[in-house]
Amino acid sequence: MSVLFRQLTICGVGLIGGSLSLTARSQGLVERIVGLGRTQANLDVALRRGLIDVATRDPIEAARSADLVMLATPIVTFPTTLAAMVPHLPPDTVITDVGSVKGWVIDALEPLLGPRMALVGVHPVAGREITGAVAAAADLYRNRRVIVTPSARSTPEAIAKVEALWRATGANVERMEPRTHDALLARASHLPQIAASALAAALADEFVDGRWAADFGAGGLRDTTRIAASSAEMWRDICLTNREAIGAALKLYARSFAGFARAVEASDGAQLIELFARGRRMREQLK
Amino acid sequence: MSVLFRQLTICGVGLIGGSLSLTARSQGLVERIVGLGRTQANLDVALRRGLIDVATRDPIEAARSADLVMLATPIVTFPTTLAAMVPHLPPDTVITDVGSVKGWVIDALEPLLGPRMALVGVHPVAGREITGAVAAAADLYRNRRVIVTPSARSTPEAIAKVEALWRATGANVERMEPRTHDALLARASHLPQIAASALAAALADEFVDGRWAADFGAGGLRDTTRIAASSAEMWRDICLTNREAIGAALKLYARSFAGFARAVEASDGAQLIELFARGRRMREQLK
Repeated sequence: MSVLFRQLTICGVGLIGGSLSLTARSQGLVERIVGLGRTQANLDVALRRGLIDVATRDPIEAARSADLVMLATPIVTFPTTLAAMVPHLPPDTVITDVGSVKGWVIDALEPLLGPRMALVGVHPVAGREITGAVAAAADLYRNRRVIVTPSARSTPEAIAKVEALWRATGANVERMEPRTHDALLARASHLPQIAASALAAALADEFVDGRWAADFGAGGLRDTTRIAASSAEMWRDICLTNREAIGAALKLYARSFAGFARAVEASDGAQLIELFARGRRMREQLK
Repeated sequence: MSVLFRQLTICGVGLIGGSLSLTARSQGLVERIVGLGRTQANLDVALRRGLIDVATRDPIEAARSADLVMLATPIVTFPTTLAAMVPHLPPDTVITDVGSVKGWVIDALEPLLGPRMALVGVHPVAGREITGAVAAAADLYRNRRVIVTPSARSTPEAIAKVEALWRATGANVERMEPRTHDALLARASHLPQIAASALAAALADEFVDGRWAADFGAGGLRDTTRIAASSAEMWRDICLTNREAIGAALKLYARSFAGFARAVEASDGAQLIELFARGRRMREQLK
């Protein structure tokens, strides 16, 4: 494949940006990669692993000559980061991001763009329990879902180039409306996180006769709470930026849970079978 | 170790009873093992794998000469099974079970015992996603928790012999009150099951713009709903027989979940951090 961008500047060279960078370099899709970071230690790892050619902590230096800027820091910092860079970017730069909420990001970033800049929102749906440049892996996106959410300031050309970059990773790239993305992820990702964290939080200080209840769980408790170990800051930000869709997803869950609670309370065996079987059917359909 | 029992009769030769049987035989703890079953196919597997010496579908035949009867069928069938056997058992037989609810089982079985029989309730806390004699494994219990719940009809001698049998598997055997067991397991096992099943059931028929929402989950959704694939009948029975303790556990969870929902609704970032961090702390303490 030919060169798509002359200079990609990745803001936040962690698992997500660093993994993409490995593909972009090995396939020659980008001539030069600049990493903008907060901590020198992580930038040094990124340099040593060859994820970037140049490391900087200065948004102005990072902006110069970039024809693609990828925002890969925590989403609530996107507007500040982009605002600091825009005056120093070439006029036709394409802005993209990897945030797991799309409506809020697009609404916050579009007003900051220069008149000829384009924005292409992207969400690579890949695991994030491990973080940092040290975790970057070329095969992270193989057969994973990468969702592109075109908006008012996306141009067909910018969308095509950003999609080509992601397709090169082996990901399944698909397009949808930002609001559709946010509603789907609220149900399939943000809701499970809150259900898992609420379970873990409920048991954090729960003792029976001096014994910590959580010690008596087996694999089921461990699986069901695994993602509760995720970053509290990241999930606060997702809750704050996808509030409405998450609110709807939480109501959906609360209704389902209340149905189980009522059936237990009423000792309604037939209803319990129906509810557990419905959960089992979903699970069997899950790919 | 010397022989503990001359004849162990296992009612329901599946993963749990069959795995114990492998240890009992290899260490010479039981002279003869009789399997009582419903389906000939599973009994044939148990015979072929050497889990049992004799297979029968007749409770009267299974009762004869047993000095230990282990109930390992679905818990709600324990009373019927035991009632059919008692008149044909030797007068000093020890009855034990492997049910995951203890108060209900003990209350239901004690009135059925002959005057010189003893009952020792046991719950081996081991995974059950796979079932049947085909799944039995000698190392299933190594370093797992096996909870013994002595009750009014347990004798010190019967407790000691049943505990010795379980200790031989490499399990960590501990004793507690039946009600304490049921409260702990309601929180650490039954609650996670209902939380997982309620999540799976909530998403079973949930579409956004024609897309099945669950298709957009990653590892988090998969982990959090894994146990929703469990048997609906088994979980109905657990809900019906541990109703009160499960009701309390569900209330504990509902309060925790409502806290998250309120913080999302109110866009309360500080509270979200506190709640997610509490979940993370529990998860980090989990062994």
